[in-house]
Amino acid sequence: MRRGGAPTPLTPGASPGLPGPPGSPGIGRLSFNQITAERASLAEAVEACARQGVPYIAVWRHKLAETGLDRAVRLVRDAGLRVSSVCRGGMFPAATHAERESRIEDNRRAVDEAAALGAEVLVLVCGAAPPPDRDIAAARRMVADGIAHLVPYATERGVRLGIEPMHPAFAAERSCITTLREARCLAERFDPATVGLVADVYHIWWDSDLYEELARAAGRLVGFHVSDWLVPVHDVLMNRGMMGDGVIELRRIRGAVESAGYAGPIEVEIFNEAVWRTPLDALLPLVKERYLACV
Amino acid sequence: MRRGGAPTPLTPGASPGLPGPPGSPGIGRLSFNQITAERASLAEAVEACARQGVPYIAVWRHKLAETGLDRAVRLVRDAGLRVSSVCRGGMFPAATHAERESRIEDNRRAVDEAAALGAEVLVLVCGAAPPPDRDIAAARRMVADGIAHLVPYATERGVRLGIEPMHPAFAAERSCITTLREARCLAERFDPATVGLVADVYHIWWDSDLYEELARAAGRLVGFHVSDWLVPVHDVLMNRGMMGDGVIELRRIRGAVESAGYAGPIEVEIFNEAVWRTPLDALLPLVKERYLACV
Repeated sequence: MRRGGAPTPLTPGASPGLPGPPGSPGIGRLSFNQITAERASLAEAVEACARQGVPYIAVWRHKLAETGLDRAVRLVRDAGLRVSSVCRGGMFPAATHAERESRIEDNRRAVDEAAALGAEVLVLVCGAAPPPDRDIAAARRMVADGIAHLVPYATERGVRLGIEPMHPAFAAERSCITTLREARCLAERFDPATVGLVADVYHIWWDSDLYEELARAAGRLVGFHVSDWLVPVHDVLMNRGMMGDGVIELRRIRGAVESAGYAGPIEVEIFNEAVWRTPLDALLPLVKERYLACV
Repeated sequence: MRRGGAPTPLTPGASPGLPGPPGSPGIGRLSFNQITAERASLAEAVEACARQGVPYIAVWRHKLAETGLDRAVRLVRDAGLRVSSVCRGGMFPAATHAERESRIEDNRRAVDEAAALGAEVLVLVCGAAPPPDRDIAAARRMVADGIAHLVPYATERGVRLGIEPMHPAFAAERSCITTLREARCLAERFDPATVGLVADVYHIWWDSDLYEELARAAGRLVGFHVSDWLVPVHDVLMNRGMMGDGVIELRRIRGAVESAGYAGPIEVEIFNEAVWRTPLDALLPLVKERYLACV
């Protein structure tokens, strides 16, 4: 929770190399996850990041599909940005064998896209138990099986897969993999050079094993996502807030993530109607300000 | 998830001793948690349970305050009902020492009420980290401390305390104790004659350690609450559904709860606007029907 008055805004266009205030991670690690500007095109998000000195962007596949992969690669390269992640692969569980095969094939396309963009990681949102059975144990087996099928393809193309445990509120619809512990146990079946973990504060902040599990994830962390948990909660999908507006102990969690050896990009990923309505030229400076002050 | 056609409705007023269909728990263990009829008074809920042959009721303290304790005791006794639980004690964390003392004192009144009603258990909804710090680790210590202060009073009056881990979606507002594992580790600091666990399917169904943790809770389970998790989720507080309308594997979980030695009342506890709008004379038969068919 943010304290005291509003921090001094950064100068727009601050250099990526600019160190932040004491204790801050520095702008050099900031990644703008484009879902934070869900109404903008990839071209608009890339241009805004470049103008505002944000060095990384995380790219969503539905935006990539709008833009076209070749054009997206050029846009990102010409803007001098790096891609922290492609969101998202996963969604492995399905009711039929044919549908599961089709999901794995779609994940191979996501690997291709991540490779083309030079992305640090392909984020896996693992998927939930399909109807009619809604058997969550079976869904977990389908996830493990799906990752096992994807790993050789990802390894050949040099793309790391990041299993992102999701908040238990999404267990019936988005991911049957809900805790860091569960994600770690799953990841440990595979080579850490290819399969790691993505720690998103929104999904994991509540866990009484959080700090022990971050320590156990040493060597496996391949992504770190920040936002905040607003109170009161209504719609859990859209309840994310700007860093500092909620209850998550962001700095303490970042410290634990770094103690576990992660020094890569930090993605700001916010699903929130008010954030989505904010013009990019106002949003990016606010993201930078809160990132430096609160993360 | 319920399959096939609607089960045959029970005869209204079926005897508590009536066995249910094969595999069902039997009406003799059914408890109507009065929040399932949030618009009804305690007198109305008691009368409906008696008329419909539901042997147990769970009583909420705000309803008790409306009715008065002495009258509530008479209503329940005259109707021949038993009280499965009083909801709720807990809410231990607070920003100041004085406020924490006041919370513990209020919990002593809840123990008195549970004792007067002959309730099987006082449910503890433990509480969340208070502003401004929102320090969840500190809140967890306040919970342990609060229970430690309450235990001697509860022991003297023969009231069992049931720690109810709540869904992580409520971690910032209702309970910093979120998983069965965490609740068990907390309960194990105390005598099992006084401190146990309440397993509510809505809060725990998603947990990959669910069945291992239910087994580890053997001898500590003092309550079992059922409802269902509806899909899609919007408002997590009001997302509970009638058993069979959602994704929870109720029968499998009940089996695990019974394997862990729990043979007590099974509370139907549903926060849901459509359920709350249903008249008691229609609601109770539906509760019985779904309880027998799905739990």
